[in-house]
Amino acid sequence: MNTHRYLSEFLGTFALVATVVGSGIMAENLAGGNAAIALLGNTIATGAILYVLITIFAPISGAHFNPAVTLVMLALRELSLMGSILYISAQIAGGLCGTFLAHFMFEQEILQLSGNERSGLAQYGSEVIATIGLVLTILLGRKFRADQVAMLVGLYITAAYWFTSSTSFANPAVTIARTFSDSFSGISISDTPYFIVAQIIGAFMALLLSQILLKSAR
Amino acid sequence: MNTHRYLSEFLGTFALVATVVGSGIMAENLAGGNAAIALLGNTIATGAILYVLITIFAPISGAHFNPAVTLVMLALRELSLMGSILYISAQIAGGLCGTFLAHFMFEQEILQLSGNERSGLAQYGSEVIATIGLVLTILLGRKFRADQVAMLVGLYITAAYWFTSSTSFANPAVTIARTFSDSFSGISISDTPYFIVAQIIGAFMALLLSQILLKSAR
Amino acid sequence: MNTHRYLSEFLGTFALVATVVGSGIMAENLAGGNAAIALLGNTIATGAILYVLITIFAPISGAHFNPAVTLVMLALRELSLMGSILYISAQIAGGLCGTFLAHFMFEQEILQLSGNERSGLAQYGSEVIATIGLVLTILLGRKFRADQVAMLVGLYITAAYWFTSSTSFANPAVTIARTFSDSFSGISISDTPYFIVAQIIGAFMALLLSQILLKSAR
Amino acid sequence: MNTHRYLSEFLGTFALVATVVGSGIMAENLAGGNAAIALLGNTIATGAILYVLITIFAPISGAHFNPAVTLVMLALRELSLMGSILYISAQIAGGLCGTFLAHFMFEQEILQLSGNERSGLAQYGSEVIATIGLVLTILLGRKFRADQVAMLVGLYITAAYWFTSSTSFANPAVTIARTFSDSFSGISISDTPYFIVAQIIGAFMALLLSQILLKSAR
Repeated sequence: MNTHRYLSEFLGTFALVATVVGSGIMAENLAGGNAAIALLGNTIATGAILYVLITIFAPISGAHFNPAVTLVMLALRELSLMGSILYISAQIAGGLCGTFLAHFMFEQEILQLSGNERSGLAQYGSEVIATIGLVLTILLGRKFRADQVAMLVGLYITAAYWFTSSTSFANPAVTIARTFSDSFSGISISDTPYFIVAQIIGAFMALLLSQILLKSAR
Repeated sequence: MNTHRYLSEFLGTFALVATVVGSGIMAENLAGGNAAIALLGNTIATGAILYVLITIFAPISGAHFNPAVTLVMLALRELSLMGSILYISAQIAGGLCGTFLAHFMFEQEILQLSGNERSGLAQYGSEVIATIGLVLTILLGRKFRADQVAMLVGLYITAAYWFTSSTSFANPAVTIARTFSDSFSGISISDTPYFIVAQIIGAFMALLLSQILLKSAR
Repeated sequence: MNTHRYLSEFLGTFALVATVVGSGIMAENLAGGNAAIALLGNTIATGAILYVLITIFAPISGAHFNPAVTLVMLALRELSLMGSILYISAQIAGGLCGTFLAHFMFEQEILQLSGNERSGLAQYGSEVIATIGLVLTILLGRKFRADQVAMLVGLYITAAYWFTSSTSFANPAVTIARTFSDSFSGISISDTPYFIVAQIIGAFMALLLSQILLKSAR
Repeated sequence: MNTHRYLSEFLGTFALVATVVGSGIMAENLAGGNAAIALLGNTIATGAILYVLITIFAPISGAHFNPAVTLVMLALRELSLMGSILYISAQIAGGLCGTFLAHFMFEQEILQLSGNERSGLAQYGSEVIATIGLVLTILLGRKFRADQVAMLVGLYITAAYWFTSSTSFANPAVTIARTFSDSFSGISISDTPYFIVAQIIGAFMALLLSQILLKSAR
């Protein structure tokens, strides 16, 4: 059994979501209504923790923390079907616990349901684009500069929070977890399925794109 | 044919401009009229994505994403004339598509024309200076610390957004693309040609300067 | 005698606290009442100085600057009991002097007592979580990427300032030092003991967790 | 003749001051009176450009850009007296031109005199502390992690802008240059001599401290 690998995926997604949701609450509490300042705080915390989590957990589990990434690794036969199911389960469970932890730390109701509407083609298209970028960054990054993947992902998400109208979830486990927080970083449950479909489409478009780019490259 | 190289230049410039324009729209939407906060968001997103794009695309195409850089490489005979034309075409096409994508993601008219006047000697001089700095950073950086070029360019532009009155376009393809966005990062079409001339002058002044600095260095 | 090691722990904790307290005063002075902007300034300064201090002092003393970390090293038998006592004494003394220096630099009363209440289960729980994260980052980081520990700790704290409601002290020496500053980063003396207990609990939970994660890992 | 070395010191100090002064003007223009936001912009630009300038110019001239650093190198006999005089002259000339360039880029009077009073023991003490920290970072950094000196100095100054009441000039050439800008980053000429004396005292205190720390270290 590779229990430690599932534990690593659980802990990483847990800490990632606790940071996204927690820093969103902190930022909104302090920003006095200026959403750009709130997003700056949210961005810096998220980018920083991604670098940390990927650096310390990648040697244990590969540091996916993201079902879209795990599905791509399954397609590349780097993970078995059963392994992928366990990875994704650990990620979803970790993400949910991350939301609960953030609510606990900020003295909010543990279980909430988000009222943050994020609908429309522009938002869903943003998620396709955001996930293409994320997965392409991972697939090219690990090939060309494997030692820089943690920094690459951290800075990619730093940028993507700002260049997409959806603030770039790009991760089905994180999307599910954020459905249960009625705060700055939440997403209404009616939008969640569309986000997840968009993310999976984006992930496989990135896989295709990476193969075109790498096939002809020397 | 080196199709993958042109695809790499297209994709990189596409993502760069989508980030510059998209984060500009996001930042302006959220900043409640405080332009310094908007510029902070715009800066962080742009610096971060430059590090990512140069790291993942440099092994494929050199990651110019910038006709001024491509012209310098042509002058250094590191690229053929035909290769340079194809690079520059890919960069301009990528940049334009990046603007369109940003507009799509933020539910704006796809095709716009900027009303942002950026004229006068101070602005054009800023572009000469900004491009001297950028090209000198690349030429010295790749010689002394080739593994750090992505970080160097990302942080150079981070600084240059703030130390020039033009916010440092320093890139003809990006300048053309930003002409077609009537948002925070746009530039009026009447200023575009002056910016491009200033950038090309700056690029060749940097080439000269780098040769003076490197000739006598051991 | 390893005087230089204790001097290194003293100087590092001194500079760390001077930065935390000093940048808190500066940020609060300038932010015009917007606490999110103040926290941004405080965060960036703290994250940056941690990277610097750990990089330059780690080769001399290991750069703990933190009694919770020293206790973990004692438990791992990497430090003697006497060595640990001297380390912790140097850290507490350094921290206090750091607070005094910050007050001197900003023309405040040198000796103050904080009125910043930080009580309740959510705050104490935040400190447990913050310290688990910090110590786990150190223990896994030094095993997998020893050359990145300074960046890891700097960016971990950058994130933790935002994802915990306590803004993540995660350090008993720093907590004691901040008790004596009635400013943005202060903590009321009635909360200090709870914070310290929470931090020590968190540190040993991280030690346990790291052994579970590393035992089964190859 | 080592002309290229003096050119490198000139250009580096020139670009450093143009960034400090230029980003200060930009930040103040845009920040709508919120000095913390202005200082954030000023900080990010300065930290970023220091990383760039030290990385690209260190292989040519050592990238001092700072008479206090040059004097320490003279004391360490790493530079001749004549070399030091030429370095310092190049730094002062470069700094002054940097101020003029920033004024040109922002359409201000080229020659100004600052009205920014920065007096008192707290300010002068801040400069002693800031320069101790800077020079110690350089002396320990180059010994333990020579490849990280550019990042160390960039992040040290990032922190020091916030933890000192003087915003950490820590550089006589930059102090002289900033005397001639009546903007956010300026300093009144009556304070300039005190700042310079404080900086030189700090530099030599750091030299002493580094020798204590390194003598006993293995």
